[in-house]
Amino acid sequence: MAAQLKTAVLGATGYAGFELTRLLLRHPRLQKPCLLRREDAGKTQDLAEAFPALSGNGGHALEPFSVGRLKQAGIDLLFLATPHELSRSLVPEVVQQGVRVVDLSGAWRLQKPEHRAVYGFEDRDAGAANEVMRQAVYGLPELHASEISTAALVANPGCYATSVILALAPLVNADLVDRSRGIISDSKSGVSGAGKEATARTHFVSVADNFSAYGVFKHRHLGEMLEQLGLASQDLIFTPHLLPIPRGILSTIYVHLAQSVTAAELERCYRSFFAGRHWVRVFAPPKLPEIQYSLHSNYCDIGFCLADDGRRLVIVSCIDNLLKGAAGQAVQNMNVMYGWDEAEGLN
Amino acid sequence: MAAQLKTAVLGATGYAGFELTRLLLRHPRLQKPCLLRREDAGKTQDLAEAFPALSGNGGHALEPFSVGRLKQAGIDLLFLATPHELSRSLVPEVVQQGVRVVDLSGAWRLQKPEHRAVYGFEDRDAGAANEVMRQAVYGLPELHASEISTAALVANPGCYATSVILALAPLVNADLVDRSRGIISDSKSGVSGAGKEATARTHFVSVADNFSAYGVFKHRHLGEMLEQLGLASQDLIFTPHLLPIPRGILSTIYVHLAQSVTAAELERCYRSFFAGRHWVRVFAPPKLPEIQYSLHSNYCDIGFCLADDGRRLVIVSCIDNLLKGAAGQAVQNMNVMYGWDEAEGLN
Amino acid sequence: MAAQLKTAVLGATGYAGFELTRLLLRHPRLQKPCLLRREDAGKTQDLAEAFPALSGNGGHALEPFSVGRLKQAGIDLLFLATPHELSRSLVPEVVQQGVRVVDLSGAWRLQKPEHRAVYGFEDRDAGAANEVMRQAVYGLPELHASEISTAALVANPGCYATSVILALAPLVNADLVDRSRGIISDSKSGVSGAGKEATARTHFVSVADNFSAYGVFKHRHLGEMLEQLGLASQDLIFTPHLLPIPRGILSTIYVHLAQSVTAAELERCYRSFFAGRHWVRVFAPPKLPEIQYSLHSNYCDIGFCLADDGRRLVIVSCIDNLLKGAAGQAVQNMNVMYGWDEAEGLN
Amino acid sequence: MAAQLKTAVLGATGYAGFELTRLLLRHPRLQKPCLLRREDAGKTQDLAEAFPALSGNGGHALEPFSVGRLKQAGIDLLFLATPHELSRSLVPEVVQQGVRVVDLSGAWRLQKPEHRAVYGFEDRDAGAANEVMRQAVYGLPELHASEISTAALVANPGCYATSVILALAPLVNADLVDRSRGIISDSKSGVSGAGKEATARTHFVSVADNFSAYGVFKHRHLGEMLEQLGLASQDLIFTPHLLPIPRGILSTIYVHLAQSVTAAELERCYRSFFAGRHWVRVFAPPKLPEIQYSLHSNYCDIGFCLADDGRRLVIVSCIDNLLKGAAGQAVQNMNVMYGWDEAEGLN
Repeated sequence: MAAQLKTAVLGATGYAGFELTRLLLRHPRLQKPCLLRREDAGKTQDLAEAFPALSGNGGHALEPFSVGRLKQAGIDLLFLATPHELSRSLVPEVVQQGVRVVDLSGAWRLQKPEHRAVYGFEDRDAGAANEVMRQAVYGLPELHASEISTAALVANPGCYATSVILALAPLVNADLVDRSRGIISDSKSGVSGAGKEATARTHFVSVADNFSAYGVFKHRHLGEMLEQLGLASQDLIFTPHLLPIPRGILSTIYVHLAQSVTAAELERCYRSFFAGRHWVRVFAPPKLPEIQYSLHSNYCDIGFCLADDGRRLVIVSCIDNLLKGAAGQAVQNMNVMYGWDEAEGLN
Repeated sequence: MAAQLKTAVLGATGYAGFELTRLLLRHPRLQKPCLLRREDAGKTQDLAEAFPALSGNGGHALEPFSVGRLKQAGIDLLFLATPHELSRSLVPEVVQQGVRVVDLSGAWRLQKPEHRAVYGFEDRDAGAANEVMRQAVYGLPELHASEISTAALVANPGCYATSVILALAPLVNADLVDRSRGIISDSKSGVSGAGKEATARTHFVSVADNFSAYGVFKHRHLGEMLEQLGLASQDLIFTPHLLPIPRGILSTIYVHLAQSVTAAELERCYRSFFAGRHWVRVFAPPKLPEIQYSLHSNYCDIGFCLADDGRRLVIVSCIDNLLKGAAGQAVQNMNVMYGWDEAEGLN
Repeated sequence: MAAQLKTAVLGATGYAGFELTRLLLRHPRLQKPCLLRREDAGKTQDLAEAFPALSGNGGHALEPFSVGRLKQAGIDLLFLATPHELSRSLVPEVVQQGVRVVDLSGAWRLQKPEHRAVYGFEDRDAGAANEVMRQAVYGLPELHASEISTAALVANPGCYATSVILALAPLVNADLVDRSRGIISDSKSGVSGAGKEATARTHFVSVADNFSAYGVFKHRHLGEMLEQLGLASQDLIFTPHLLPIPRGILSTIYVHLAQSVTAAELERCYRSFFAGRHWVRVFAPPKLPEIQYSLHSNYCDIGFCLADDGRRLVIVSCIDNLLKGAAGQAVQNMNVMYGWDEAEGLN
Repeated sequence: MAAQLKTAVLGATGYAGFELTRLLLRHPRLQKPCLLRREDAGKTQDLAEAFPALSGNGGHALEPFSVGRLKQAGIDLLFLATPHELSRSLVPEVVQQGVRVVDLSGAWRLQKPEHRAVYGFEDRDAGAANEVMRQAVYGLPELHASEISTAALVANPGCYATSVILALAPLVNADLVDRSRGIISDSKSGVSGAGKEATARTHFVSVADNFSAYGVFKHRHLGEMLEQLGLASQDLIFTPHLLPIPRGILSTIYVHLAQSVTAAELERCYRSFFAGRHWVRVFAPPKLPEIQYSLHSNYCDIGFCLADDGRRLVIVSCIDNLLKGAAGQAVQNMNVMYGWDEAEGLN
């Protein structure tokens, strides 16, 4: 077997970073990943302190991060599971050092300034940032495998965006969508999507026995959906909701088709678009996916229900927000970047 | 104080019937309600056997039901919390005896045969059924208080239907809805809405850590929405989902307005429509209701979010499916039927 | 009817304070309670901002607290739903002003200094504190109704303590417990018992799909149990656990009896001890209480299972931690303090 | 690599059988397992119909079971995830055919007739059953690895029993337990432990927001604990409880030690007992295991808290009831039976 890849993770103590670390630890192509922590990241010395589920398998020490250390340790690929501000400030230097990067934050996903505005980035070196931005590839392998394979920087998609883009891309690609009628994605996510910070909103008593909408018309992931699907702002309404479950996303998507089709035609459209892709499962109607089916897997499950008129369409798409919506997709991207089987280390 | 009303409940061992019984037990205008059971309803002798929460307050014996018994006991008002087939077969004779009825099932809600078809009623005496159907009043007091006040038979609305109709009625009434663009209600309900029967679908392990859509384009409550809102079938897509919580409904409703309005105008439209009605709370934007806010109350909470274009509108409406969606609304209907304050016994 | 009592609540924005406020708002003997907030309590102007469930019923303004204001407003009875340090520092002055107090914190529950040590009180005026401590009555009406009726200061019991003391008091009273074998209370509580503060431990993702023990041998409520039951420290092991539910406590209690008894004798022992008390329900074996039965009520439910040897006994006791374990018991104490029916305002 | 083992599963449509199948499908030493169904097992043709999570990986056809088919297919090892009555009737013939068996039911775990009585077995051929019973090995590898390695029939332990026996075996082995004071295991399990059958008790609304004890003094797993730990019936009280979570067991175990020890001595006792065993993790005090830590893993986590007197001990042990409590342990047993690393296929 060829020499194994050297990877590092910055941000392993967050939910997505931890899932990623677990995947990397058992990936057959990798050396044991190097776990790095920010200087301001508290005193956690070993990842098992933050996630006792990891205990008993030898140590998982967290080492201080620096760009110099990456080179010194011969890191080939750095995963960033960090806040977007940090990713935005770190990546230019890392990439310049020749270390490839998969960034799980929103820092480098958006090419259009008007979509990026919501993040409020303050780049110290706007020229460098723009240069990096031009190289960044949106890491949805079902759409951009070829660019990902050679990318220096892969911007791992947002969780909601993954569930919506994959459900709509085949229809947009086949020019089936009547945009004038508007597309709606009513999406629901488990709480891990809100991150590990303890807030009034993530308190158990606030979430349990509850359900709520938030961020209507203004969620950060909307920009990704528009850019990737080639839609204008008014074409798509995206409403996220908070589910009283730890993980999983279900998007219910409403589309008016430009012409009347049959369910069989639609199923063929989906199957042909995703032919050869391991991580999308198209359900034959009338079966619809549920969150449980893809939980703890890297699958995006897609099903649909077509009205008798052949034009009003309800699509249901499910992912595990921490896997296909974050860490699993990051590993899938790595597999594509290095020419390995897309499913390697993910089963 | 005037002589107190004599009420009876058939079906107190179901979720809605039990909630109803608890409400009736503490309603200040009523004698202790008479609890009736069907002959085939198993051996439960006292309601506290089925719901131990009720124990310790003296007995709550279940007596066998018969129409004769209703008269003998001098029952003024019968609540039916029974399967729709049973309501359909019982009501004509009960009403003929001069006993008023609030029926919580779907048996008498739909005036149009094409909407009723989904229930597959097989009336033994079609003439009598049609006669009763003509007298039936749809029991949404915010829309039909006047007819309810004199009705012999009140058809208590479906839970989903309540949450959707109340959210849309003010807009339809003000002729603000652009029907050509289609209305969508993406609704989510807790598990008690599926009833007390133990099935693969209500098993804890199937529901917990899960979320799913069902009955797309064909849920029974759709007909109520169309009739009450004066919509055609193609005007409204209704998608119910199962939430991993015991109770509560949240509907996220998407409407395209016929003309551009301001949020303030819209809020006024809602407030004026519900002026004087106790059980609807209109939220001032940007605050949106959440399921917890109306849980264990008879409120329907309504909030909205209007896009910058003043035309794309997202409405969020919440109820407790067992109260405003069933038992609480039944009591509210009784209050209206007898000229009492709408809130009596419900606070 | 006599003039209605004037009450005030300090701390209404916490879980217990909010439940208490809801109870006081509908209690038939009271004027609308005066809601007070500490100077450092943030900017909440109306309780409905913190708990939107309360909206739509007119305002519930929070006014700044001061002892002078209590007198000025003619407050008869002050409820403190505050941290124990604050209760400890406020109560001496309030009581001196002739305002009666029900304190929901642990500040005044423990007569023995060795039990109080765990709280680490730093009294500015130890003499005054000791004087108040001597007057304080432990507010468990099933044990101390007579002293409560005339008390200036009622120390409302801890939630765990309530569930354990009520389950054991009849046996201790009848001298049935073999203390040499040790008593064990394995208790489980919903998350609201941990308070409203957002911490890593109350984060939804940490609690859901989880269950854990904590505070073994050293929980603060242990002292109350020992004092009230007349036990020595080594007689009782108390292990609290965190349940993935919002509210409710179930204690499973293991006792070795000093002599062999029958289940019928034991049931009589319990029933006779609680004769005439509204808020304890004794279950006839083999039926055991479950958390759902007493949820949203002020009941303490007690059942038991006796081994064939007539000596090894498992007792199960359930309460709603926010009602019988906090706010409901506070109202029950008020009822006793003013000579009203124990159940008034609590049904 | 040597020829791969041929395995079969009867009962893959239950929770444990499904988990087992997933483990076998990715175990590196095995051919794809043969999935068998009982003649009366309904019409499921493919396991993905019952568990859509499995879809998209090629078919998983369920074939009719018969002993003849086992031989014909050259099955080396049969896993039974069947009701105990069926295991009891099938195993004698299967074993006689030279096929090794791991039985996940309670059919062959108990050597003493008085412990088996609770199952009410009605053996058609008592002689054959007794003969098989004598050969059966209790499949707890941490206690019986040597016998398991050569066993024809391994009786996979009960889930509760696993969590209790592993927590107590080191103490019993070191003769540290004062049995005269009685041992108590207060155990709590997720709902999957109650099986896939839809009942009033497994209905979501009955379980969510609830917690309850059941089967006090008489749960079937008690006999296993007594036999494996060499205890008499009066030595151990075992109280199971139902947690509102899908999976996981936590046992809180109370022991009085025969002599005073230090926490360090106790930790050494545990560590030395489990030295070299992969699937038990001993926690250093004061850290206690929680259900989340071992979820979706084959670990049994054990921690403890010792009172200042060095004699009163609280042990906390956690497992995933479907893995270490069922399917994972079955695979671990297979690994031991064939001389493979205990962790093979389980990471």
